[in-house]
Amino acid sequence: MIWFNKSLKVDDLQRLHKSTMADFLEMEWVEVGEDYLRMRMPVIDKTKQPYGLLHGGASCALAETIGSVASAVVINHEEYKCVGLEINANHVRSVSSGFVTATARPLHLGKKTHVWDIRIENEEKQLVCISRLTVAIIPYF
Amino acid sequence: MIWFNKSLKVDDLQRLHKSTMADFLEMEWVEVGEDYLRMRMPVIDKTKQPYGLLHGGASCALAETIGSVASAVVINHEEYKCVGLEINANHVRSVSSGFVTATARPLHLGKKTHVWDIRIENEEKQLVCISRLTVAIIPYF
Amino acid sequence: MIWFNKSLKVDDLQRLHKSTMADFLEMEWVEVGEDYLRMRMPVIDKTKQPYGLLHGGASCALAETIGSVASAVVINHEEYKCVGLEINANHVRSVSSGFVTATARPLHLGKKTHVWDIRIENEEKQLVCISRLTVAIIPYF
Amino acid sequence: MIWFNKSLKVDDLQRLHKSTMADFLEMEWVEVGEDYLRMRMPVIDKTKQPYGLLHGGASCALAETIGSVASAVVINHEEYKCVGLEINANHVRSVSSGFVTATARPLHLGKKTHVWDIRIENEEKQLVCISRLTVAIIPYF
Repeated sequence: MIWFNKSLKVDDLQRLHKSTMADFLEMEWVEVGEDYLRMRMPVIDKTKQPYGLLHGGASCALAETIGSVASAVVINHEEYKCVGLEINANHVRSVSSGFVTATARPLHLGKKTHVWDIRIENEEKQLVCISRLTVAIIPYF
Repeated sequence: MIWFNKSLKVDDLQRLHKSTMADFLEMEWVEVGEDYLRMRMPVIDKTKQPYGLLHGGASCALAETIGSVASAVVINHEEYKCVGLEINANHVRSVSSGFVTATARPLHLGKKTHVWDIRIENEEKQLVCISRLTVAIIPYF
Repeated sequence: MIWFNKSLKVDDLQRLHKSTMADFLEMEWVEVGEDYLRMRMPVIDKTKQPYGLLHGGASCALAETIGSVASAVVINHEEYKCVGLEINANHVRSVSSGFVTATARPLHLGKKTHVWDIRIENEEKQLVCISRLTVAIIPYF
Repeated sequence: MIWFNKSLKVDDLQRLHKSTMADFLEMEWVEVGEDYLRMRMPVIDKTKQPYGLLHGGASCALAETIGSVASAVVINHEEYKCVGLEINANHVRSVSSGFVTATARPLHLGKKTHVWDIRIENEEKQLVCISRLTVAIIPYF
């Protein structure tokens, strides 16, 4: 199924985040696929916890960012807005340097809610974090 | 039940986070209670999403930070370390300015896992986010 | 805050479940409090897994039942219906006999979603399972 | 990756559940794949809620059953046992009759925890429920 328009450019997505948390954590859009979006984030002091490893909260921030934007891209902006309702995440592997890359794919795109499957991997494509984000789709009127 | 030693000082906790994600997002320790810990975080550009509201990922980062440190404070550091295993969170109210304050209380302190209840409130003490964090307690040897 | 009407009787609630999963698993309404509802369930073959312990899925079934009915009781039935959207649960203690009792309290009662905190305890009032249920409130028209 | 031995028979798995919740809810093993397991469950009074739809708790019971058994099949039984630690599930579609089928695939098979992705579909292969189960692997000695 094709959910994302190929005319959507990573630069346009990147511009959305200017001066927000995603920008400060140096998240970057990597790819717009037909049925997925992909972002990466560096494992640096700003995204680490005291043991020197990727902070679980940084993984969550990446998952919330990519899933929320994925919903925002799918809906009609003049009629609806979208807000994160629920997130869950399992942290399965630690990372101490380099980049992690998140891929978001739709599990459910309903009228009132979207559910996204988000996998975060290290540079060896090993699973670091698996997350599911539920987004509420709210009509403006 | 008394879980946290009154001799534990917020300054000592604050020092733990130096040059980490918590520090960068300006999280501050507020209080060490007998059975809870409390931290706050400002709602500023660095913790917001593109609509100008607190980023759900910032709430998760706050929840992971306070719950992980709460576990680290409870365990014997020479024998064990602790890592976040699973987190979930419901975002129930938006915030656009000021501070949010997280309170972590233990739900379960087992030998192998800890489970924390974390409530994040706005300055009017209204619930912003409710989260549960499962921490794995891992022996060094 | 008073959420539940004292005129609401456990017998009326019990009648709702006739010939459903809750009935089959022998769930019983115990109490209607001002801000909580309480149900219990026996730990018997029908609610156990192969090791002879309470099945985690039975705890989930109890949590979904009590939280969904709690929402159904709070909303206006002529205008809205409610459906479970998301559930999560930590299983923290095993039980091999007797009853477990679930208490549901509201964390958030919004226009579009309700979030319930559900604690399941054994007969010694020790925590067995902690769950959070998100319920969608859907207008009929 | 091959996780499940082809010599493993659905009849052997079925026998495990005799006189347990899975048996009472009429869950049946359908297939042992190389990297997945599959079970089905009928949508009948015993698995329904008062609106006449599949009970969310029945989906959770199916997810906990298949994920726990999947872990039990992977571990060495003489040294370890496994218990469900955390489950989460999104209910995305209602079902009023027929069967639902769950497929469990490993997301993470670590020394101390397993994480399973469980998808439950209706007879038209549409997603009904998406769940993730974290199982603790506990040494006997």
